[in-house]
Amino acid sequence: MNFASDNSGPAHPKVIEAIVRANDGYAMPYGNDPYSIDVNDKIRDLFNAPHAAVVLVGIGTAANALALSTICPPWGRIFCHELAHIEEDECGAPEAMIGGGKLTLLKGDHAKITPKTLADAIAGSTAGIVHSHQPAALCVSNLSELGAASTPAELQALAKVAHAAGLKLHLDGARFANACAATGATAAEMAAPVDTLAFGGTKNGLMGVEAVVIFDPDAQWELELRRKRAAQLFSKHRFLAAQMDAYLTDDLWLEMAHAANAAATDLANGLRDAGVEIAHPVDGNQIFARPTRAQHRRLQDAGAAYYLHGSLEGPDEERVTCRLVTNWSTSQQDRQQFLAAL
Amino acid sequence: MNFASDNSGPAHPKVIEAIVRANDGYAMPYGNDPYSIDVNDKIRDLFNAPHAAVVLVGIGTAANALALSTICPPWGRIFCHELAHIEEDECGAPEAMIGGGKLTLLKGDHAKITPKTLADAIAGSTAGIVHSHQPAALCVSNLSELGAASTPAELQALAKVAHAAGLKLHLDGARFANACAATGATAAEMAAPVDTLAFGGTKNGLMGVEAVVIFDPDAQWELELRRKRAAQLFSKHRFLAAQMDAYLTDDLWLEMAHAANAAATDLANGLRDAGVEIAHPVDGNQIFARPTRAQHRRLQDAGAAYYLHGSLEGPDEERVTCRLVTNWSTSQQDRQQFLAAL
Amino acid sequence: MNFASDNSGPAHPKVIEAIVRANDGYAMPYGNDPYSIDVNDKIRDLFNAPHAAVVLVGIGTAANALALSTICPPWGRIFCHELAHIEEDECGAPEAMIGGGKLTLLKGDHAKITPKTLADAIAGSTAGIVHSHQPAALCVSNLSELGAASTPAELQALAKVAHAAGLKLHLDGARFANACAATGATAAEMAAPVDTLAFGGTKNGLMGVEAVVIFDPDAQWELELRRKRAAQLFSKHRFLAAQMDAYLTDDLWLEMAHAANAAATDLANGLRDAGVEIAHPVDGNQIFARPTRAQHRRLQDAGAAYYLHGSLEGPDEERVTCRLVTNWSTSQQDRQQFLAAL
Amino acid sequence: MNFASDNSGPAHPKVIEAIVRANDGYAMPYGNDPYSIDVNDKIRDLFNAPHAAVVLVGIGTAANALALSTICPPWGRIFCHELAHIEEDECGAPEAMIGGGKLTLLKGDHAKITPKTLADAIAGSTAGIVHSHQPAALCVSNLSELGAASTPAELQALAKVAHAAGLKLHLDGARFANACAATGATAAEMAAPVDTLAFGGTKNGLMGVEAVVIFDPDAQWELELRRKRAAQLFSKHRFLAAQMDAYLTDDLWLEMAHAANAAATDLANGLRDAGVEIAHPVDGNQIFARPTRAQHRRLQDAGAAYYLHGSLEGPDEERVTCRLVTNWSTSQQDRQQFLAAL
Repeated sequence: MNFASDNSGPAHPKVIEAIVRANDGYAMPYGNDPYSIDVNDKIRDLFNAPHAAVVLVGIGTAANALALSTICPPWGRIFCHELAHIEEDECGAPEAMIGGGKLTLLKGDHAKITPKTLADAIAGSTAGIVHSHQPAALCVSNLSELGAASTPAELQALAKVAHAAGLKLHLDGARFANACAATGATAAEMAAPVDTLAFGGTKNGLMGVEAVVIFDPDAQWELELRRKRAAQLFSKHRFLAAQMDAYLTDDLWLEMAHAANAAATDLANGLRDAGVEIAHPVDGNQIFARPTRAQHRRLQDAGAAYYLHGSLEGPDEERVTCRLVTNWSTSQQDRQQFLAAL
Repeated sequence: MNFASDNSGPAHPKVIEAIVRANDGYAMPYGNDPYSIDVNDKIRDLFNAPHAAVVLVGIGTAANALALSTICPPWGRIFCHELAHIEEDECGAPEAMIGGGKLTLLKGDHAKITPKTLADAIAGSTAGIVHSHQPAALCVSNLSELGAASTPAELQALAKVAHAAGLKLHLDGARFANACAATGATAAEMAAPVDTLAFGGTKNGLMGVEAVVIFDPDAQWELELRRKRAAQLFSKHRFLAAQMDAYLTDDLWLEMAHAANAAATDLANGLRDAGVEIAHPVDGNQIFARPTRAQHRRLQDAGAAYYLHGSLEGPDEERVTCRLVTNWSTSQQDRQQFLAAL
Repeated sequence: MNFASDNSGPAHPKVIEAIVRANDGYAMPYGNDPYSIDVNDKIRDLFNAPHAAVVLVGIGTAANALALSTICPPWGRIFCHELAHIEEDECGAPEAMIGGGKLTLLKGDHAKITPKTLADAIAGSTAGIVHSHQPAALCVSNLSELGAASTPAELQALAKVAHAAGLKLHLDGARFANACAATGATAAEMAAPVDTLAFGGTKNGLMGVEAVVIFDPDAQWELELRRKRAAQLFSKHRFLAAQMDAYLTDDLWLEMAHAANAAATDLANGLRDAGVEIAHPVDGNQIFARPTRAQHRRLQDAGAAYYLHGSLEGPDEERVTCRLVTNWSTSQQDRQQFLAAL
Repeated sequence: MNFASDNSGPAHPKVIEAIVRANDGYAMPYGNDPYSIDVNDKIRDLFNAPHAAVVLVGIGTAANALALSTICPPWGRIFCHELAHIEEDECGAPEAMIGGGKLTLLKGDHAKITPKTLADAIAGSTAGIVHSHQPAALCVSNLSELGAASTPAELQALAKVAHAAGLKLHLDGARFANACAATGATAAEMAAPVDTLAFGGTKNGLMGVEAVVIFDPDAQWELELRRKRAAQLFSKHRFLAAQMDAYLTDDLWLEMAHAANAAATDLANGLRDAGVEIAHPVDGNQIFARPTRAQHRRLQDAGAAYYLHGSLEGPDEERVTCRLVTNWSTSQQDRQQFLAAL
């Protein structure tokens, strides 16, 4: 009954098998092995972007920070939702890799930003005024931090506003696969409106691999230098490549996301049936549930793991907000046990 | 016949087994799993330093850069050998994580620094002069970049000079295990003189794990924040911990280093017998060999992989410098085949 | 009729005289001249802080950024008002000198922060969570960016909350003199609650000098190194020292602030009499006036200079917000001419 | 008898007069006053570069650091002489403003770099290797740090090598005027081979103004943002502009440099006549003299101010190296008194 994070689940057996296979014998380091060379082109194929700049890294925060550093100068302003991962959960890594930058926080239901909100923020910003940061980028998470998916059309609408003002659009795709599974969009369709992408794998069944994709054919060398300088270039790179290769083979990435999303939908339905409020759309694999504090305590006693947003102390009947996250391995038994404990 | 790098060899089967084992079921992310909690204490035990600050990262450059960032302020000067990894091979990552700093390059045979050289450099430096960097640290690689080992006594002599001038001593231990195997020193003996240590695993049979060890009990929280901000905190941290756990179990780390060192000694002897000059002491697992260009070409034609320092063009009989690196898996067959091709 | 900024006014004749006097003959550079050595002690006397660290710089942004860099680590969070100068008008200089940091924006009437707002923000922040910035400092402007003064007691109340949570308090004192003149507090009383201070001179009759004061006797050397590295150490430092010396002599700093404040009070009264709304308290030398757009146009036509917050386009009878700033040299004639043009 | 630095001399009376004149009445801040707008075009005229990007700053270190930050990425390598001001005397400000960068130190007589030395360094560097810094710029001081002038032809020869390898050439022109006076080159001729220039004023009779000139018409806005973010944009900018205006009027800048150079030549001749060795060419206003230690002591006793490179302790008859710097105001009486004391 571990719904703490998609990071708390195991890697998929095919991923482990790929790692074991990749360990056979010698391979040139730093991405010069056959696995690594092939996998970048497979990623380009996935996004129908034969000239995109691509590198692999081991951590999602690194993927976001590296991507943003290619589109935001030290004096640049990045608009993002006030709950964005880059604001809340990366301890300043984006600013560190940018060597500056400022995150300007926007509001929006379900941690999504509307084109109107973005347009207003840009209009009210300090473009052209030397005393302050210059609008440079928009960063959108899909899935959002509150579990909502954006369609390619929604991203396109944001991109239109951003691009019209000279901003680039970065997509924090830690749960990109879940968003594709939720909306039915292909990877290429989902990425079409964006300029840079962190294509997540770790939350979706890999041991630890993310791809940075820059849809600017001139960016490859700069991106590789940035990755190295950020201490994100793995010497035994074949192990990253092997994971990503398994991820892309037979659309395992999408298969795992479908499984995780289905588990979340199923669990959310069970929760609703049990009278638990659901605070945000369960488009992907995140559920923001509002049980009563008494229910929460029962779940804790039964050993369920998840994050509580708010205080354990208070009246029994008061509702608290809990984040539950499923992953490819979430079983029906886990869900039933959880609902039973409720 | 791959002697390109210790990074080109495979991970040890016990390491792979540990990863597979760790993949069983759920585990809290970001180092809050049982593997991760235990392994930090095992590292502290290894160094007989119960209160040391310890974190795991995936890349040696990150380990050096993080360690240095805890002992060098933005205006600090770090003395190191002119061939040091932090100068030559990290693309500015140390300066990036320090948020400044300056590497001041020292000379020394076999890429080792003598206490006299250090003392002279400190005396001639800009301590107390506001216009320039302030001496802050000495960084020593052991093994050195040219394959020479330093004994604990040699490190102690450097530490004495450094500490007398208020400098901290960082040990780049990418090949720390090989240095212990070469000198017979225990890990604790080798680390006793130093203030911060990058304890390498990746070059010595792991998939990709290094430990940063700061022998200052107050540094743990700062180190964890620095790691996070540098985008080096892995969510599925159990996989790093499992590797390090296997590494420490039954002294696998030392066993692998002994094997690599023995292979290098054996290969160096064979090379000498074949009339190839050896440019530096073969204390550990690195050989700087000087075959003739004709020999080099024959080796290349036979498919041997290693780095050539210098030009492929030139007279056949002229000697060229080649770096050959062994690892735990280097086989007798590899060596014989190599010598035969010569 | 120039009310654009206190920066648009001239330097006081006594300041110019001091510069001319200081130009006589030779003087050792970089703060080693007699003027410079004396003036730091005069500043310490003013604040009754004989061991404070003190340096002079030429620009207010540098003063804030340097001061903050001594109390906020790269992973630190600085709470400030959403209109704070460090957020709006310094183009990231604080983050640049800190080498990181994050400004977390608070709301508050008249650009002042209440202890309650601060306490709530600290309580809701990410202290102790490795994934995000750690609360490090509070930055308060006095005068506020909307012209309101804080008393020493108000600062003390904020300091109490900040210090209880381990935060340092930085005072952006670009208009420190106006705040003292407004409240009747001495410099020492006003600075007593704070840890670091940017003591402004440029907006108050100097050509361009600010003092950074760190009330931590151990900070002098670090502060000097930070100033040098930030390229803020003037070689012909005597000219900064001479200005500051004139500023402190016979309380010229306070005399000029009283004059500027009185001019603002007088002008605000005239505006009110003319039916212009005043949006915020006119405690010091800033007036946020709300004339009708028709009045604004008349003022523009008459050649009055000030900043309009909002659009020039719109109905004549609609009110617009204008910032008017007085300085030591603002004359009665300027005010009368302005009111007449209204 | 103050030969400590050209920074220890006074500002020229015409400069002071210009400041006094500029203090009359109101002027828009931050470079929007008439003085400031005019003076940038006057600088462009001087360099025959109508579209160059130009900003004024108050400090030479800031000028170098800002200029370099526009031509060197965080992973860039800057070649410079091992005695370069940016290496020895700026405490890391260039790296701070670049947000990275590495200075690679070259040797050369009289602190000058030869095209051959540069070509060899570029050839031996790490261009195209992701593990290390990428060659980005050459920084040359003219005058050199040891007083030697370079002609436009010499700079052109360096520029040719640099540009062929894709490097930009920055000229540290703290003593640019002295170099022009020494060689007879016009400002435009001297600057023709370079990409970026720090055009010094402070060492040559101004109170504290330097111009950053980027000979790339697209750089103006970026340069202004960089200046602001580096806290180098003065609010009362008219006082910088007025100084620079006086500097350019009737070639005062060149007149002062000629006076300083002539004083140095004269003093050097007197020293030679007195048996003092002169270590480097006295092309401009710096003399590296080698009196005996006994002579040095006599000069000290007589109150002469200059820098001693080496130890005060030692045999009387041993020679020591002293740096003597003249400026526009160095009088014949100063020189005679000095030679008499010898």
